[in-house]
Amino acid sequence: MKKAIILHSGGQDSTTCLVWALKKFRNVEIISFDYGQRHKTELKAARAIAKKLGVPHKTISLPVLKELTKNALTDKTVKIKTGKGLPSTFVDGRNQLFLTVAAIYAKQKGIKNLVTGVCQTDYSGYPDCRETFIKSMQKTLRLAMEYPFTIHIPLMHLTKADSVKLMEKLGGLDLLKFTHTCYEGTRPACGKCPACKLRLKGFKEAGIIDPLLYRP
Amino acid sequence: MKKAIILHSGGQDSTTCLVWALKKFRNVEIISFDYGQRHKTELKAARAIAKKLGVPHKTISLPVLKELTKNALTDKTVKIKTGKGLPSTFVDGRNQLFLTVAAIYAKQKGIKNLVTGVCQTDYSGYPDCRETFIKSMQKTLRLAMEYPFTIHIPLMHLTKADSVKLMEKLGGLDLLKFTHTCYEGTRPACGKCPACKLRLKGFKEAGIIDPLLYRP
Repeated sequence: MKKAIILHSGGQDSTTCLVWALKKFRNVEIISFDYGQRHKTELKAARAIAKKLGVPHKTISLPVLKELTKNALTDKTVKIKTGKGLPSTFVDGRNQLFLTVAAIYAKQKGIKNLVTGVCQTDYSGYPDCRETFIKSMQKTLRLAMEYPFTIHIPLMHLTKADSVKLMEKLGGLDLLKFTHTCYEGTRPACGKCPACKLRLKGFKEAGIIDPLLYRP
Repeated sequence: MKKAIILHSGGQDSTTCLVWALKKFRNVEIISFDYGQRHKTELKAARAIAKKLGVPHKTISLPVLKELTKNALTDKTVKIKTGKGLPSTFVDGRNQLFLTVAAIYAKQKGIKNLVTGVCQTDYSGYPDCRETFIKSMQKTLRLAMEYPFTIHIPLMHLTKADSVKLMEKLGGLDLLKFTHTCYEGTRPACGKCPACKLRLKGFKEAGIIDPLLYRP
């Protein structure tokens, strides 16, 4: 397997996937999606990380998600909350849309491998982060385009702590200071939103210090 | 089943689906996609048909397809040709992208039923018109959003002639003069591109005269 495209949000998980993919594939490029997210600073993080690693980076604009859905990630009037049912940060169809567009792009370049950092262990209640969805998605993409796509999901069954340890093993820990995780979109990170909390918990459990700056 | 969204290209098949859906569902609305197609006149046709039937109509802009793919439908420098392999009019991932976006939109409105006019009988070599793709897509959508979508495909196993006869039975034949089929995007239709030819063949085999105007 020679070439791969990494779906890159600018966050910790996709950066871990990127470092993983650089060991596995000969050619790697990353794509990010501008979908009107409130934490747009993650796109800058993706660009910075790509530049640092010398990897081609493309941002694809998908304003349709913000136009059609109402959720806490694309609409500042919706409060970030978790609890019973789907969290308010769940963006309907986001991963399906991203993987579809990534696959369309990949096929034009003759690339069969897609890598995404979705993970069902600490999946925050997002149904489109589960393995059962990814398997079904891979099958659907193959049927739609008659093309042998493989969706690689190196983090699917890892805890956040395992991901941190994997990144340490891959020698990429220092890169994580350039990533962006915070839903609030602030730098230094807020340390309080569900995404920051999940990240901090992972580092704590791994016994490793997060190189990212947090608000005191 | 009460509400449905029809994916409407402005063409013959989706107009037949629309008339079919109006008999089956209490509330029907149609969506069309502006993806930079050269036959943009089909969007006007969709609007005109929606207006004629008093059905809400929404056009969703998806410039990403034209940005990412090279094919005869979005790029006038590519010649329309069929034959061995995928035809040059095949737009990679188009139906998967449209169904994904339609489902996202539908869920926001509490609508579980999607209707599309894809058909594998005369499928022009498009892999994303086959039933096996639609079944896989339905499963993937349900998993991605944890929502009980059903994709209705009333034309899947009909020949073009059968579709014409179905439309006659539904009493919608006259509406077909407002539809647009021609890949060249001209009105009157060219009568010579693969889409026009397929349409004319269907009417001929059904023994019914196409109410659409063709170039002499």
